[in-house]
Amino acid sequence: MRAAVFAQNGHEPLRQTRIPTYVNGETSIDRLIQLIHEITPSDEMIDAIGIAVPGPIDPFRGVILAAPNLPEWGGILIPERIKAATGIRAVVGNDANLAAVGEWQYGAGQGHHNLVYLTISTGIGGGVICDDRLLLGHQGLGAELGHVTIDPNGPVCSCGQRGHLEAYASGPAIAAWVHDQLANGRISSLEGKPDTKVISQAARNGDPLAKEVFERAGDILGLAVANYLMIFNPSIVIFGGGVSETGDLLLDPVRRRVRKAVLSDHYLEGLTLTRAALGDDAGLYGALTLARGTLPA
Amino acid sequence: MRAAVFAQNGHEPLRQTRIPTYVNGETSIDRLIQLIHEITPSDEMIDAIGIAVPGPIDPFRGVILAAPNLPEWGGILIPERIKAATGIRAVVGNDANLAAVGEWQYGAGQGHHNLVYLTISTGIGGGVICDDRLLLGHQGLGAELGHVTIDPNGPVCSCGQRGHLEAYASGPAIAAWVHDQLANGRISSLEGKPDTKVISQAARNGDPLAKEVFERAGDILGLAVANYLMIFNPSIVIFGGGVSETGDLLLDPVRRRVRKAVLSDHYLEGLTLTRAALGDDAGLYGALTLARGTLPA
Repeated sequence: MRAAVFAQNGHEPLRQTRIPTYVNGETSIDRLIQLIHEITPSDEMIDAIGIAVPGPIDPFRGVILAAPNLPEWGGILIPERIKAATGIRAVVGNDANLAAVGEWQYGAGQGHHNLVYLTISTGIGGGVICDDRLLLGHQGLGAELGHVTIDPNGPVCSCGQRGHLEAYASGPAIAAWVHDQLANGRISSLEGKPDTKVISQAARNGDPLAKEVFERAGDILGLAVANYLMIFNPSIVIFGGGVSETGDLLLDPVRRRVRKAVLSDHYLEGLTLTRAALGDDAGLYGALTLARGTLPA
Repeated sequence: MRAAVFAQNGHEPLRQTRIPTYVNGETSIDRLIQLIHEITPSDEMIDAIGIAVPGPIDPFRGVILAAPNLPEWGGILIPERIKAATGIRAVVGNDANLAAVGEWQYGAGQGHHNLVYLTISTGIGGGVICDDRLLLGHQGLGAELGHVTIDPNGPVCSCGQRGHLEAYASGPAIAAWVHDQLANGRISSLEGKPDTKVISQAARNGDPLAKEVFERAGDILGLAVANYLMIFNPSIVIFGGGVSETGDLLLDPVRRRVRKAVLSDHYLEGLTLTRAALGDDAGLYGALTLARGTLPA
């Protein structure tokens, strides 16, 4: 868990810290509240707390709907809980949505009015700005951009469905495909069960298997991005998350496929495809926007 | 081409008429202007004209971007042209987008804030309402919901790409699959080159091939609808267009697949999947909303 304190109009955190979510015998709720107390300056008033939460949440009430990794949060009205413990108003949003907001307000998406953000990491999440507003949907569950079917006969996704984008292009999906190829006797400089960092290094050193897996993931990701161009007609698509740090290894095949797969070249006019600017801090900046109440509703 | 006149606050057309788009020697532009003159009551002031145009348009300037069937419209600033000929202010929108608006304001979608509309006809078009606003995107080219890839190895679409939703579930795609099966010697009560009306009648009479093609189209359509639930989290999905008039023949397999393919059952809570209420008039009502300036921007 990470936390930062910002001055009323400042863009640089006054203080920033991170702690492990779990330690023996303490709940992550208690640890979060403790973290807030620790980071709060004793001589300053805090107006509001913005919180980015992983997984599907009801952002209107501030309740996590499904969090296999955070079971003790189930059913808890997070803003009420934080307010009771700290006396400070709190607002909650989905982490990928808030990362999109962060990049839009403070990062690569500044000045754009229609933006698609994809975070490519352990899973694939999304956030969308439509005409200067965050896409939420009627329950706040929209923009699940990693869990759309790309191929009904494709590999099984972490969610159990077949052929989702996440099942091709997430970090674990990229690694699993390489492990599978190695187990089937594919010749490569890689051995054992390399992770995406090791695989990307091998790709840069010219390993054909490592290059192929990024071609494959980027190609499918490009197909999904082309779909999102037709669906949202954004002026920018931003790629965040650990896997996007491989850069052109992943984004070159994305660009190639996008150019081929769009319905017309109009969708490419004035379009930027780029990496995120804020890295891991995107969610913090989105939560800042939420806390400041400057997110257009 | 069809036109209707509405009173300032009325929901029933005062007059309505339709004419063929082409007759020998007249351009469709001249015919449209003539149609406007004919339907305008001589003793009434017309405040504004709303126009629903097929195919991709720039709705901000009112220019058709690609209209293979309407070549003489290319590059024309439609609102300026209509204003010059009639003296009346005109506004233009994409027909599927405006059908969505029509159903939202006057049809099956009344009272909903997040709505997905799919028109299933010669092609498949879409319109989306996000949080009470029409989704347009930065050039007005969003919501092309028929041209998303469902299967990269699927059949070729009218647009030339592979495996788009339209390549499975449009009227011509349904008919083409049946023609193909018949040409390959499939036993059926159908013969020759039946159209979707004839095929749907045969399905109702129990013909296995005819039933199968609607199962297939509905299943793929359901997969696309599940994607749109995850993307937009709407409270209603409305099916318009000629093929949707086959009703449960198409929508039962859609519902079955949607239930299986959603990421979580939350997406089904408070969700309505239904046929359009306004039929062919949805676009007229959307154009009415546009002309009245009551479309939230």
